[in-house]
Amino acid sequence: MRNSKTSQTTLTATKHVSFPDRLPAYIARVEQVLDRWLPPAGQKPASLHKAMRYAVLDGGKRLRPTLLYATGETLGLAPDQLDAAAAAIEMIHGYSLVHDDLPAMDDDELRRGRPTCHKAFGEATAILAGDALQALAFRVLAWDSALKTPDSRRVSMLRLLADACGSLGMAGGQAIDLDAIGQKLSVDEVEEMHRLKTGALIHASVMLAALAAPETTDSQLQALDAYGQAVGLAFQIQDDILDEEGATDTLGKTQGKDRLHDKPNYPTIAGLPEAKARSRELADSAIHSLAPFGDAADPLRWLANYVVQRNS
Amino acid sequence: MRNSKTSQTTLTATKHVSFPDRLPAYIARVEQVLDRWLPPAGQKPASLHKAMRYAVLDGGKRLRPTLLYATGETLGLAPDQLDAAAAAIEMIHGYSLVHDDLPAMDDDELRRGRPTCHKAFGEATAILAGDALQALAFRVLAWDSALKTPDSRRVSMLRLLADACGSLGMAGGQAIDLDAIGQKLSVDEVEEMHRLKTGALIHASVMLAALAAPETTDSQLQALDAYGQAVGLAFQIQDDILDEEGATDTLGKTQGKDRLHDKPNYPTIAGLPEAKARSRELADSAIHSLAPFGDAADPLRWLANYVVQRNS
Repeated sequence: MRNSKTSQTTLTATKHVSFPDRLPAYIARVEQVLDRWLPPAGQKPASLHKAMRYAVLDGGKRLRPTLLYATGETLGLAPDQLDAAAAAIEMIHGYSLVHDDLPAMDDDELRRGRPTCHKAFGEATAILAGDALQALAFRVLAWDSALKTPDSRRVSMLRLLADACGSLGMAGGQAIDLDAIGQKLSVDEVEEMHRLKTGALIHASVMLAALAAPETTDSQLQALDAYGQAVGLAFQIQDDILDEEGATDTLGKTQGKDRLHDKPNYPTIAGLPEAKARSRELADSAIHSLAPFGDAADPLRWLANYVVQRNS
Repeated sequence: MRNSKTSQTTLTATKHVSFPDRLPAYIARVEQVLDRWLPPAGQKPASLHKAMRYAVLDGGKRLRPTLLYATGETLGLAPDQLDAAAAAIEMIHGYSLVHDDLPAMDDDELRRGRPTCHKAFGEATAILAGDALQALAFRVLAWDSALKTPDSRRVSMLRLLADACGSLGMAGGQAIDLDAIGQKLSVDEVEEMHRLKTGALIHASVMLAALAAPETTDSQLQALDAYGQAVGLAFQIQDDILDEEGATDTLGKTQGKDRLHDKPNYPTIAGLPEAKARSRELADSAIHSLAPFGDAADPLRWLANYVVQRNS
C-alpha cells in the first residue's frame, strides 16, 4: 500500500489484474484528487494552504479511500463517482492526525516518518490547517459535480460524514481516549472508544460509497454497514497490537505510544493473544457479511484480511 | 442585545412591536435551538459535551442568528425554517472563538466575562470541543427536518457554510490575522483580512436565510449578498474601534488586544476618524442595497445601524 507515481489511466487499463495490484493506481488517484481540491500552496493565505497540503498529500496507507473504491467495485460504481468522498474522508483523517499530534493532545513529533504538522508549521497554523481541512471535506462533498447521485443522496452522504466526525463519532472517540489516560477500562469500554475514534471514519468510508451508488438496496446497505463496523474496530485493535509490538522504523511513527502515555489499549488490557484473536474474529465477521455480493466483494474481502495482517 | 428568559411564544405574540423589541425573544429562541441540538451535558463523553455547551450557550450578542431571522422577516419566512441555520452559524462562531482563544493563538483567558473554554476545561478538550462543534454545525444543517426547502437548496446552504468556514473564508482570515502580527498592512489588506475572518460568517448568516426561502429571486439574492458583505466588514471595523477605545468591563473581553499582540487593525492603520467614517459608509451602503425590499427590510436596516453604533 505504498504511494506510487502510477498514473490514473493505469487503473482503467488493468481491471483484469487482482485488487492488490490495482492499489497503487487507486493510491495515485487519491493523491491527484486531493491535489485538485486543495488550494494551491502559493494561494493566500499561503502558510495555511502549505500546511493543509503537507497534512494530507504524499502520505499514509490511504486505507479509507481504498475501502471506498473497493466498495464501489463491489457495487459496480465508477471511481469518478467516489473521488469526492475519498478526498473528503482523507481530509478528515488528515485533520484528525494534525490535531491529535498537537502538544496539548498526544504531543507527537513524528508522523509518517516526517515532522508533524505543528513541528513543521507552528502550532497555530497546524490548528487552523486542521480546522480548514474539516471545512474543506464538507465543501468537496457538497460541491463535487462529478457525483451523479440525486441531491437527497448527497444530503445523506453529508449527514453520514457529519455524524462520523462529531462528538458521537471521531471527535468523541478522541475525547474518550484523552479521558482514559491513566484509567483502567474494560474490554467493552476500549472497544467503544475504538469504534468512535477510528471505527466511525472507516465505517463512513464504506457507507459513503454505498450511498453514492443510487441503486443500493436496504439489505445491501445493512450488509456493508456490518462490514464497515467490523473492519473499523479490527483496524484499531491491529493498530494497538502494532503499537505494542511494532518497530518505530516500520510504522513511521513513534511506537509504544500508548504505554508511554499510560493509555489503555486492547492488548494491554486483554493480552496480545486475545487481541489477535479478536481482530481475526472481526475480520472473519466482516467477510461473512459480504456473502450477498458474491465474487464482486473480493476487494473488500482482501482489505478485511489486509487490515488485520498488516505490519505497518 | 442581552440574553433574556423571554419565552419563544412571546415572539409570535408581539409581531406588532418593533424589531429591537423582538430581539430578546429571538435570542431566547437561539438558546433553545442550540440546547436542543447539543448533546446533553451528561452524555458520554461528558467532558466534551460540557465544553461544547459552555462554548455556545448563555453568551454573546447572537448577532449572526439575529441577522438570519431578520433576513427571514424581510423575505416572509417563518423562524422555524431558520432555526437550524441559526444554530449552525452560532456553533461555527463558538468553535472559532474557542480555537482563537487557545494559548497557541490569541492566548486569551477571558471571553464574555467568563474563563475561556481551555481555561475551564483544559486545552485538549477545548481543541476537541471546537472540532466537534464544527462537525455539529454541518450535522444540524444536514439533518434538520423542520427545513422545508428542497434538497437542492439544502445542498446550496451546506456549500455556503463550508465555503464560509474554510481556508478561503473564516479559517483563512484567521491565518492572515496570525501572519499579520508585527507586519505593516495596507488598508486594503486589513479589509481583506476582515472580510474573511469575520465577514464571511456574517455574510453567510444573511445568505443562509436567503437560500432557506425557496422563492428568493436572483436579484433578491444579489441585494442580500451586497448587504451581507457590507455589514460583515462594518462589524469587524467597529470591533477594531471598540478594541482601540472600549473598556474591558463593557466588552466582557480583554480590551486593547490588538495593540498588545502587535496586530494591525483598521484604526491603528487608518486612524480612528477614518475607521469610523468607513464603518458608517459601509452601513449606509448595506442599507442602500435593501431598497428593493421596501419596509419589509426594516429589521436589516436596524441591524446595519446597530452594528456600527454598538459599544460592546
